[in-house]
Amino acid sequence: MERLADIGEDALIARLLDGFATGGLHTGPGDDCAVVDAGGDRLRLLKADAIVEGVHFKASSDPRAIGWKAAARVISDFAAMGGRPEFLLVTLALPGSMEVARVEGIYRGLGDCLHACGGTLAGGETCSVPEGSAAVLSVAGEGSVARDELVCRSGAAPGDVLVVTGRLGGSLGGRHLNFRPRLDEGRRLGAAGATAMMDLSDGLAKDLPRLARASGCGFEIDRGALPRHDGCSVDQALGDGEDYELLVAIPEERWHPLLREWPADFAPLTAIGRMVASGGELAGGWDHFGGR
Amino acid sequence: MERLADIGEDALIARLLDGFATGGLHTGPGDDCAVVDAGGDRLRLLKADAIVEGVHFKASSDPRAIGWKAAARVISDFAAMGGRPEFLLVTLALPGSMEVARVEGIYRGLGDCLHACGGTLAGGETCSVPEGSAAVLSVAGEGSVARDELVCRSGAAPGDVLVVTGRLGGSLGGRHLNFRPRLDEGRRLGAAGATAMMDLSDGLAKDLPRLARASGCGFEIDRGALPRHDGCSVDQALGDGEDYELLVAIPEERWHPLLREWPADFAPLTAIGRMVASGGELAGGWDHFGGR
Repeated sequence: MERLADIGEDALIARLLDGFATGGLHTGPGDDCAVVDAGGDRLRLLKADAIVEGVHFKASSDPRAIGWKAAARVISDFAAMGGRPEFLLVTLALPGSMEVARVEGIYRGLGDCLHACGGTLAGGETCSVPEGSAAVLSVAGEGSVARDELVCRSGAAPGDVLVVTGRLGGSLGGRHLNFRPRLDEGRRLGAAGATAMMDLSDGLAKDLPRLARASGCGFEIDRGALPRHDGCSVDQALGDGEDYELLVAIPEERWHPLLREWPADFAPLTAIGRMVASGGELAGGWDHFGGR
Repeated sequence: MERLADIGEDALIARLLDGFATGGLHTGPGDDCAVVDAGGDRLRLLKADAIVEGVHFKASSDPRAIGWKAAARVISDFAAMGGRPEFLLVTLALPGSMEVARVEGIYRGLGDCLHACGGTLAGGETCSVPEGSAAVLSVAGEGSVARDELVCRSGAAPGDVLVVTGRLGGSLGGRHLNFRPRLDEGRRLGAAGATAMMDLSDGLAKDLPRLARASGCGFEIDRGALPRHDGCSVDQALGDGEDYELLVAIPEERWHPLLREWPADFAPLTAIGRMVASGGELAGGWDHFGGR
């Protein structure tokens, strides 16, 4: 009998979505967001995501940080398409024994994140889980992106420079709860002609092969060039996950001008390698059902 | 120390949403869907909802029925605004020990419902819950409604006739898993000038006071007139919940013409009472944290 833990997340999703039509979508399941083209200058972005007690946060975590994280993860996916958030819907599945003050703290965190990133809370649902079950926070959102600034995962070509924002590794020390979605950076990268982009949630080792696969390319990285947080090893930078930095492919001729004009108050850019015709393998990263 | 079970769902939501801006929304939190007006003939509807193992379905329930229900609940909310579904996003939070075949069954059920009701699956996420935790299926959706057919909860006026579609009570016998969202009925009611509408998910006794409160009215119902499923008592029709029928207020002068022209293959309409200036009380219905 085949169980989820036997096959891992990517294979599961591929099997589940097989056979579903994607009518009406500019970009369907498999990218950071789905993209809807309803005409006009801006495209709509749709994304849903959940965080789970005992997986993405602890029962003892600051509720305000939990709320921030739940919203920021979805907003980070809008950033990864070059877009911005518009509306969020929040569904909390919680045990009845939870303190009201804790739930209010979660909502304050959601509000903090919307205040910092933009966007409006369009709805809030709550429902109960049986006592002893993990709390689940599900956030769905609608965002938008200028038509000519949309960046999907699938547009990279051999020769493109691979770039990351910020630094990687060590997120479990706390950054996984209070990271700031790279909205300004994502928009600038979209406008500068990035060919592929995604946010790093499961670790570079897991996410870069996804971007390469979506683009039909391979990749080479310079492990020594990976920008790491203080005290982090290269393996941590590759595998810890939850960095929520942007991974970007950009044609060589656009890379140097971009770097020269990159604002000092944006998360810094680092070239870490390059797209090639085929090949590339990395060990590590997070799989929800397969584990590390 | 105040816990969720002490205050109930409506009071919780009111407290949580207090202070959130609703900029950019035609209709904010508190209705069946949020409504976005981006110009043009149609308004956008946004809704998210979750179903939980042990609360909304059993671990032994048919997975295809679980998937159907998860999608149909959100689609029922679009019906309740006079609208239709466009795109759904599905997030499954599941234990790694779950059988892959069961998850595939859930997706088949989602697909059945989209096939029957219209709409496209725009994204599917999965994440793990700790072993022993309840599975949570979260569905978010975008729908649309013709501008002049939108019906909110808040437009009823004293004198309006109160109407329900179909019959009430006894949903736990199985209908709660395989109900058909009243899309055609909702659209027709919107076009016919209904002043307020919602879907009955927590039971008439819980939901009718919500509609009355949103409209600033009271209500009177004729308990004997409630259309009941075979073998159901009046109390069951009031309190069982999960009927997913539409509750509608409509001005008297529009009610009789509507009834005369109501298609024979639509769920039948029954007048159950009337909106009044104030007052009205009903016992029963489902509260997620307070229980019954």
